[in-house]
Amino acid sequence: MLSKARIKYIKSLQVKKYRQAEQRFVVEGGKNVVELLASDYRIDIILATARFHESNHQVLSRFSGEIIEVNDNILASVGEFMTNDSALAVVQMKPNNTLDVRLDEFVLMLDEIRDPGNLGTIIRIADWYGIEKIIASSGTTELYNPKVLHASMGSFTRVSVFYTELVSYLNQVKVPVLGTFLDGESIDTFSFDRGGIVIIGNESRGISEEVSKMVTKKITIPRIGKAESLNAAVATGIICHALRVRR
Amino acid sequence: MLSKARIKYIKSLQVKKYRQAEQRFVVEGGKNVVELLASDYRIDIILATARFHESNHQVLSRFSGEIIEVNDNILASVGEFMTNDSALAVVQMKPNNTLDVRLDEFVLMLDEIRDPGNLGTIIRIADWYGIEKIIASSGTTELYNPKVLHASMGSFTRVSVFYTELVSYLNQVKVPVLGTFLDGESIDTFSFDRGGIVIIGNESRGISEEVSKMVTKKITIPRIGKAESLNAAVATGIICHALRVRR
Repeated sequence: MLSKARIKYIKSLQVKKYRQAEQRFVVEGGKNVVELLASDYRIDIILATARFHESNHQVLSRFSGEIIEVNDNILASVGEFMTNDSALAVVQMKPNNTLDVRLDEFVLMLDEIRDPGNLGTIIRIADWYGIEKIIASSGTTELYNPKVLHASMGSFTRVSVFYTELVSYLNQVKVPVLGTFLDGESIDTFSFDRGGIVIIGNESRGISEEVSKMVTKKITIPRIGKAESLNAAVATGIICHALRVRR
Repeated sequence: MLSKARIKYIKSLQVKKYRQAEQRFVVEGGKNVVELLASDYRIDIILATARFHESNHQVLSRFSGEIIEVNDNILASVGEFMTNDSALAVVQMKPNNTLDVRLDEFVLMLDEIRDPGNLGTIIRIADWYGIEKIIASSGTTELYNPKVLHASMGSFTRVSVFYTELVSYLNQVKVPVLGTFLDGESIDTFSFDRGGIVIIGNESRGISEEVSKMVTKKITIPRIGKAESLNAAVATGIICHALRVRR
């Protein structure tokens, strides 16, 4: 049974302040919960419909935590998304561990990405292109925001995000640091080499001045038409594709 | 002066039903309004702060319609977005005119894109890559939805969208019809030729079965990692970049 206090607790995790205090977050949707069960995240509780329970019997049988069976209405009322289907999990946050960059890998660096949809979509892009690490500025949207997790479509379980001060981080690395600027070298001719850090700037201001100074190579996405810029996640997708093709 | 009835009228245009009845829509934000003034859209009224008026004196002096000076608070209360700054316009919808495809141009075709943010972002991508036409299925989100216009960042003034039944439309065209599928030819080797239609499928179901049958060439975005799919707008960006490079 799901007590009123429990419902209140789970709902409270929709708010960042309570997530931070509890070091717990909520993952919604059947697909996301299945991906979570295959990851190294530690799950406290799973709320599941009978339907979900049945069709994921095997994977759930390996889960040692608590599973509470609920109906669709309760599930939708507890979660953030009206369309939530079949399952929801309360999960322990991971510690904000330092991520180092190997010479033979690309990582993304996010300089104040504010839109949760953009952050989730960027995590999904990283996962698609086999990029395992994201270094995010302290002002970047919180990974455990329900909208971020939703937009990541389960990819947050396979991509690590480390929040830090970008300038001090960049001061310690030895790999190429790439940033997108209007006057950079076209990604169609640029040789991406074996690895490096690709910086994605804020949605409206781009890459901040202090971080710009740490860039070792400016690149650009050539434009034909008249739009002033591309959406941050779309630009990330185009660059990730280019660095995969041109390395 | 902005009467109560006028405020009510403008607010009502946030709802699709009233937009359809009035054949009018609202454009928010200084940048968007400036782009609008440079387009062939017909503007009924502009609400502007004194600040906006001053800094855009020249472009506003060529506008023959009504300009009402308002303060930031009124502007924010009338519009959909809390962050609305400096201007808002009430604009006449364009008729849903048929768009034909020339042999030497690429156009996008949207098969049930539902998310307003995705539609706006796709319009912005089209504008960046000089794609002037979008053919959208009748079930695709409405162009004049405030969230679409917002995400398009003014690009909706330079890209035409035609809503129609896709299968009957495709029955009449003679250009290549490209669709993204998991088993298609890689966009890294595919020769895009001079033009054609690129179909972007629905966010969760992809390209519908009936529309799939009209595809003359299947293409794919190669994957390295584990994400099941890419966001529809991100995929559009990557394909538009590839067809520009590889034609």
